Amino acid sequence: MTQPAKPFLSHPFDDDKLKEECGVFGVIGVADAANFVALGLHALQHRGQEAGGIVAHHPDKGFNSAHRFGYVRDNFTKASLMETLPGPLAIGHVRYSTAGSKAAVIRDVQPFFGEFSMGGCAIAHNGNLTNADALRMELIERGAIFQSSSDSECIIHLMARSIQKHHADRIADALRRVEGAFSVVAMTRTKLIGVRDPLGVRPLVLGRLGDNGYVLSSETCGLDIIGADFVREIEPGEMIVIQDGKIETSRPFGPSKGRFCIFEHVYFSRPDSIIGGRSVYETRYQIGVELAAEAPVEADLVCPVPDSGTPAAIGYSHASGIPFALGITRNQYMGRTFIEPTEQIRNMGVRLKLNVNKGLIKGKRVILVDDSVVRGTTSRKIKEMILDAGAAEVHFRIASPPTAWPCFYGVDTPDREKLLAARMTEEEMRDWIGVDSLKFISLDGLYRAAGEAQGRDNSCPQYCDACFSGEYPIAPSDKIAQGFEMKAAE
Amino acid sequence: MTQPAKPFLSHPFDDDKLKEECGVFGVIGVADAANFVALGLHALQHRGQEAGGIVAHHPDKGFNSAHRFGYVRDNFTKASLMETLPGPLAIGHVRYSTAGSKAAVIRDVQPFFGEFSMGGCAIAHNGNLTNADALRMELIERGAIFQSSSDSECIIHLMARSIQKHHADRIADALRRVEGAFSVVAMTRTKLIGVRDPLGVRPLVLGRLGDNGYVLSSETCGLDIIGADFVREIEPGEMIVIQDGKIETSRPFGPSKGRFCIFEHVYFSRPDSIIGGRSVYETRYQIGVELAAEAPVEADLVCPVPDSGTPAAIGYSHASGIPFALGITRNQYMGRTFIEPTEQIRNMGVRLKLNVNKGLIKGKRVILVDDSVVRGTTSRKIKEMILDAGAAEVHFRIASPPTAWPCFYGVDTPDREKLLAARMTEEEMRDWIGVDSLKFISLDGLYRAAGEAQGRDNSCPQYCDACFSGEYPIAPSDKIAQGFEMKAAE
Amino acid sequence: MTQPAKPFLSHPFDDDKLKEECGVFGVIGVADAANFVALGLHALQHRGQEAGGIVAHHPDKGFNSAHRFGYVRDNFTKASLMETLPGPLAIGHVRYSTAGSKAAVIRDVQPFFGEFSMGGCAIAHNGNLTNADALRMELIERGAIFQSSSDSECIIHLMARSIQKHHADRIADALRRVEGAFSVVAMTRTKLIGVRDPLGVRPLVLGRLGDNGYVLSSETCGLDIIGADFVREIEPGEMIVIQDGKIETSRPFGPSKGRFCIFEHVYFSRPDSIIGGRSVYETRYQIGVELAAEAPVEADLVCPVPDSGTPAAIGYSHASGIPFALGITRNQYMGRTFIEPTEQIRNMGVRLKLNVNKGLIKGKRVILVDDSVVRGTTSRKIKEMILDAGAAEVHFRIASPPTAWPCFYGVDTPDREKLLAARMTEEEMRDWIGVDSLKFISLDGLYRAAGEAQGRDNSCPQYCDACFSGEYPIAPSDKIAQGFEMKAAE
Amino acid sequence: MTQPAKPFLSHPFDDDKLKEECGVFGVIGVADAANFVALGLHALQHRGQEAGGIVAHHPDKGFNSAHRFGYVRDNFTKASLMETLPGPLAIGHVRYSTAGSKAAVIRDVQPFFGEFSMGGCAIAHNGNLTNADALRMELIERGAIFQSSSDSECIIHLMARSIQKHHADRIADALRRVEGAFSVVAMTRTKLIGVRDPLGVRPLVLGRLGDNGYVLSSETCGLDIIGADFVREIEPGEMIVIQDGKIETSRPFGPSKGRFCIFEHVYFSRPDSIIGGRSVYETRYQIGVELAAEAPVEADLVCPVPDSGTPAAIGYSHASGIPFALGITRNQYMGRTFIEPTEQIRNMGVRLKLNVNKGLIKGKRVILVDDSVVRGTTSRKIKEMILDAGAAEVHFRIASPPTAWPCFYGVDTPDREKLLAARMTEEEMRDWIGVDSLKFISLDGLYRAAGEAQGRDNSCPQYCDACFSGEYPIAPSDKIAQGFEMKAAE
Repeated sequence: MTQPAKPFLSHPFDDDKLKEECGVFGVIGVADAANFVALGLHALQHRGQEAGGIVAHHPDKGFNSAHRFGYVRDNFTKASLMETLPGPLAIGHVRYSTAGSKAAVIRDVQPFFGEFSMGGCAIAHNGNLTNADALRMELIERGAIFQSSSDSECIIHLMARSIQKHHADRIADALRRVEGAFSVVAMTRTKLIGVRDPLGVRPLVLGRLGDNGYVLSSETCGLDIIGADFVREIEPGEMIVIQDGKIETSRPFGPSKGRFCIFEHVYFSRPDSIIGGRSVYETRYQIGVELAAEAPVEADLVCPVPDSGTPAAIGYSHASGIPFALGITRNQYMGRTFIEPTEQIRNMGVRLKLNVNKGLIKGKRVILVDDSVVRGTTSRKIKEMILDAGAAEVHFRIASPPTAWPCFYGVDTPDREKLLAARMTEEEMRDWIGVDSLKFISLDGLYRAAGEAQGRDNSCPQYCDACFSGEYPIAPSDKIAQGFEMKAAE
Repeated sequence: MTQPAKPFLSHPFDDDKLKEECGVFGVIGVADAANFVALGLHALQHRGQEAGGIVAHHPDKGFNSAHRFGYVRDNFTKASLMETLPGPLAIGHVRYSTAGSKAAVIRDVQPFFGEFSMGGCAIAHNGNLTNADALRMELIERGAIFQSSSDSECIIHLMARSIQKHHADRIADALRRVEGAFSVVAMTRTKLIGVRDPLGVRPLVLGRLGDNGYVLSSETCGLDIIGADFVREIEPGEMIVIQDGKIETSRPFGPSKGRFCIFEHVYFSRPDSIIGGRSVYETRYQIGVELAAEAPVEADLVCPVPDSGTPAAIGYSHASGIPFALGITRNQYMGRTFIEPTEQIRNMGVRLKLNVNKGLIKGKRVILVDDSVVRGTTSRKIKEMILDAGAAEVHFRIASPPTAWPCFYGVDTPDREKLLAARMTEEEMRDWIGVDSLKFISLDGLYRAAGEAQGRDNSCPQYCDACFSGEYPIAPSDKIAQGFEMKAAE
Repeated sequence: MTQPAKPFLSHPFDDDKLKEECGVFGVIGVADAANFVALGLHALQHRGQEAGGIVAHHPDKGFNSAHRFGYVRDNFTKASLMETLPGPLAIGHVRYSTAGSKAAVIRDVQPFFGEFSMGGCAIAHNGNLTNADALRMELIERGAIFQSSSDSECIIHLMARSIQKHHADRIADALRRVEGAFSVVAMTRTKLIGVRDPLGVRPLVLGRLGDNGYVLSSETCGLDIIGADFVREIEPGEMIVIQDGKIETSRPFGPSKGRFCIFEHVYFSRPDSIIGGRSVYETRYQIGVELAAEAPVEADLVCPVPDSGTPAAIGYSHASGIPFALGITRNQYMGRTFIEPTEQIRNMGVRLKLNVNKGLIKGKRVILVDDSVVRGTTSRKIKEMILDAGAAEVHFRIASPPTAWPCFYGVDTPDREKLLAARMTEEEMRDWIGVDSLKFISLDGLYRAAGEAQGRDNSCPQYCDACFSGEYPIAPSDKIAQGFEMKAAE
Repeated sequence: MTQPAKPFLSHPFDDDKLKEECGVFGVIGVADAANFVALGLHALQHRGQEAGGIVAHHPDKGFNSAHRFGYVRDNFTKASLMETLPGPLAIGHVRYSTAGSKAAVIRDVQPFFGEFSMGGCAIAHNGNLTNADALRMELIERGAIFQSSSDSECIIHLMARSIQKHHADRIADALRRVEGAFSVVAMTRTKLIGVRDPLGVRPLVLGRLGDNGYVLSSETCGLDIIGADFVREIEPGEMIVIQDGKIETSRPFGPSKGRFCIFEHVYFSRPDSIIGGRSVYETRYQIGVELAAEAPVEADLVCPVPDSGTPAAIGYSHASGIPFALGITRNQYMGRTFIEPTEQIRNMGVRLKLNVNKGLIKGKRVILVDDSVVRGTTSRKIKEMILDAGAAEVHFRIASPPTAWPCFYGVDTPDREKLLAARMTEEEMRDWIGVDSLKFISLDGLYRAAGEAQGRDNSCPQYCDACFSGEYPIAPSDKIAQGFEMKAAE
């Protein structure tokens, strides 16, 4: 169903960032599992701020669910709501809106639920299916009634058409039909199930909670908040099924070598999360160190663009010896959305969120470290603010290579023609933004910072870096059908 | 999915009335059809007060929808909401909660929508399917994912599995599979469709609006509010398809003779509606006339139990010559539901809604005319209030025969063992309620009042009167499977 | 402070009725008095639907209060709110917006509260002060800070400036300074206080609740709902002070003869209330009897304009022998206000609320009995609806004399030039409304119906009838200062 | 009036910080001044998060106001609200709840408004009056009716009793009667007025906006957000009156030497604000430099406790050469209040807000830099989290001296007995918190960091530092009357 013309939520400010679309979380084997899920989702809120949902199961009271727009903390902290979600097994989801449907409708909020002949099953999906359009068309032809505009709903309908007897087998059947990136957390009346796609593009980790409990979480920070111990990452292409304190593992897609999303290191994941045995903060710090080596410049101060540029700025400062300072202050009372904003608010842009520390910046040569450049519009405004504050020089250092290609694996990216790096060289970008210098970290530098001492293995890259390289490890078939042109083979 | 244990709406007072479960309304061929639907639903609000929904279609903006809990007037009168429902074609639904699922969830609110390969289709259903449980089980087995606990959703899934090319043919296919009572209003991108079940248990009328517009409404009062002209009733077993100002009619179920619900005359329909060419008010007035003849008693005043007993009380007064008076005042600011009520409110019962006019009643012999006796609890409380006010005698006259059997065709009835008339004779009921006399109209008297001069044709009854007679014209197969015992053949 | 330009509540439909502005209620000597006050206010909701407030006092927890827009039933039934209003003593108020300030602000919602050196005091006022503007100016000059636009706030400031030691004496001091109509219910930490102005224009009754409790209520229907026994009316000019189960009475304004508002009989009070030992319903019924004698006409049906015209229509029918019928149906789901209504809703007017019973009316000569004609706009629309339904003749009979003068004693009346009867003769009104005949009851007839067998005592009228006669028993001094012209002496 | 027993807002987490109670803002001489006030208040949100209010004046539409609980961004960004606040002159206020009345009531939300004979006046007050109780008692005796529990309301009542002809003179009259700390922004129909108490305890700055506009703001960050130019600080004891683009200045309290609150430098003010010609960030950085000199320790990392400890940690790192790192991550989606929280949420405490970066901390000797220690409970929990993460040593360095005395000048401080530093020596605190070392900056060190090269002038201190020194520059007379014991003279 087409959505209303006027969405009731507007996102006027953050349109110059890539946005992670989802976080997933599940808990089994503890009293009131939904409370733990709520806390886990709160810790994963950076992966999706628009809406969240929780499904819980109680032996006597069956499946119950709640889906809400807004922050986890504003909804899933209330006793009156949480009491409606009893039981020892629950999963949850936070989401940012998907590219296809900007208008927010509660039916699109996961987890999705399906009643099967062998009992109900709920699933929460982080990622994006690259053949969802084709699958949807086929499923409708075969009698499926879709209730949302979400590609993830295909999984439920594929499950419904599987002839397998067990839920987990039906999930495997369904996921063998889909293409794309997915980390899925699912639940039946008795089982908590986790699966990652063969390349393991999106993260998913396993934790242990108390004596009998297990946890699945997009990131380790979700384990920390509830005091769960990190056990291991779910491997690319692995499915695990947890029941009665026991874990079964299988590889429904055959053997595969992972290509984890490198942008999770750069920006999406929280700095206190641990990915691949490595602190995200450490990787970001090393990006700064690499950047200082690759792109040195004389200056008085190294300032992060708050908040995600901070670890790289610290690294740059340490490596270069140029003092680190907070030249830009972030208003911590700034949320992401406005309902029915005044004209003036609409026009304020980044000033509502950031302010330059004039006393510090005046007369100084400033290196600004930011995580990425997408459209470049925010970079331009920040440059203006810094110059208005009297900076003598402004040098941008970017903690990622130029973002020249859209992501089709679960990240909300503008169309390719809106990506600054798709249209301009580094020099043209520097002139367009209007700064004294602009340098991006090299792809090899980024790989080194992420722990790959030899840099990128071009014959068999260790990560998915399609947004930088244009090399898509999974063919974006729906998009190609719509006319998207892949990078020409070299 | 099982619903939350604590529904957020409670209905503490009206549990002693039968409740109509739905009203349906559709408009085609006018600008902003959804506005007319909103008004029509407001006029049909007595058929369902819990929630309402509207789906509209606009050639450029596609299908849009809104579903809300609460009164039509509190939701579908707002410009900001109605602007999201543009286009010349719209249908709507008001509902009371169904018996199976007392907890209110927005997913259960109709109209339901399905995306088919030939385009979207929305349906709104008044009635109840008596084989819904069996159908649901079969459909789940065949891969259908149900999103609601409503029996009406079966229709959409049956449509999705039809191999017909046109929506209307798929609707016919689907409805040939269902059993029960239904008046359905549906819409595609270009067509407004109306269907009644072969017996025509629930009402549905056709109206004309302006030069090119047509209207479908549960009752004629929905036509009046928008200034539409009454054209005719949709016939039992008829399907009509309206497109571009033209009407096509067909009989997908073959020829059939109707058995309209006689309780619509007694209580459900609005007194200003016209059914079968006959004013509902007139029927109710005649019930009073019949009652006066069947069950005369000496008294000083004839008082209605507000508000539905009023026309019958006027009829009784005219026929008997005993003065009509408003001995009981209804608080017009009384709604039906309370959220989180105090203990005291919970215990107040009928006193929150009704007050006896002491000055009028004191020392008088009073005849109270009420529409029906279900559990009898309200009758008892009213009797107490009247006696507290000093009445010398209290005589109940009931404008319907004893309600001894549950309805399975779209009316929310208590289980049979909770129906007073299923457990007691008229005399026992009189004693239990504690009044000087209690008389129900006879079934023949009711038929006469409804225009059947010869009374009930027992070999082939003109109406569905299962709630009084126990003769179910459509077998309640789901209920029988659950153990419901039909009336023994005589 | 001037109010916002755009009030958030609009009242599009009822602008052709006079509106009572307030109801007051107080309880002492029972557990959780506020719960009883809430029920009493619910019963008095017809006296003011815009907002309500309750103040309660608990020996340990002091004074607590809540003020809310909307119906009592939507606010003061919730356990979570009522728990914040503990204690054995409470008063409350329901209000319609005052003429001066159409925009709703919560600061204007009573009861008002003042902290004095001898302790706090809350007051609730039904009526209107005719010298409030002058008093306000004087009080501001003397250092008072007004928090509301309500005239009633003057009473609190006058109390604050009294040199009396006791609250009740300060109330008396304050009320001796005000002019106008008032029934006041007030409370201190230990006392419940009631006062009526010397003419007793607005009602106030005393009830007994349980062993130790007392109740003050605008009308007896407020006693009925909580099961309190009616004791007596507070007399015009009387003050009573209730403490520890004892009642003290005094006459702070000296001896006076009452002139109760006769319009309370006609329209404001509930038909089940008892005023002056007489059922309001009975008075209204007798108005119909008088009207039938004064203004007979040949017709087929007598129909009330719902709901307030009903008792008079019954009386007219009985006296004339013309059958009584409900020719117009009222939509019981119609509230009074719309937030942000669509254009169409704005234009619907009375059709949203009323529908003609076509089947009944067609071809008939109809007598419509209404309570009053204010602007006449509604009468005109009803006439149109009746003629559209095919009535052969339409005769209006009005249960009050022509309303030719505004009320300044607590009723929201349009300016005099907007009153139809101020600009037209009865014949002109008949032609403007467009009916076959239009007759108002005579002033003497109304007095007779109200129990004054000899009719109006013109030398010393028994009632305040200023809205009909232009004879104002209390000089409206603020209005005269603004240029209002009194009726020329004859 | 005593407030409800159950406040509807709870603040479970931040009870271990001192809280600034207010921010004030005013604009004159621009179109739609209220929009600028909203932005200014958003920039000042850190000074008060509970509620905010704006009063605006328009020549034709008079005074209008709005008061709301919650963040500025959630309320005063909406076009529908801001349209109700037209005109070229507006003032606003953000508040944290005052100590006396934890329950939030909208009547306590400033600005307050008074209608005087010479016209209306609105005032917004940052600070606290130390003789408010005595004044309130006197004013009530003299007939004042208080509407709030706020001490600031005294100012309005004192103004009402002044015999001056002009508002500004009445404000001066009123403020000469009060004792305590105040920065007041007020407005009449044509004037914007600013006043600081003789000691200038709370900040207030003047800015210029466009050609004719002027701005008053608690801090310069409020000027930055609307693009206003900083002109100068209002001087201690100065009153300025701005009308028609002209500024008049006066000194109603005679000459005085300021004693600005030094805690504004340490914690309250935003780091990008400029106070006394000095960047707050710079002062905090220097605190770190001083701390490194005063309290060196061998360690591997210097980590701030987010966010306010960051500049001092950077200073400490630079001065000591120990690497700076973000060892603790703050959840940016954490708000301050929960409505009706689950038990688990209530018990989570600081873990909801902070997480330790385990990968970074493990095995390291960590210096944690925090701004202050109040109750010490948070410090203890942070220590636990750091040790759980495997830190080898934990050293606390505090950017302020021990907080041993409550503030009575507009800061919400616990009672003295709850201040850790009032009960323990530094060593005892170290042991109670359980860290390897704990050091506070010295009072002299703090003064040096704030730009006083010679440290504190003990004979005539340059700042108010009562919370550290116990030397109260203004006698807290209400508190003394309640039994508060001042520091014994030495």
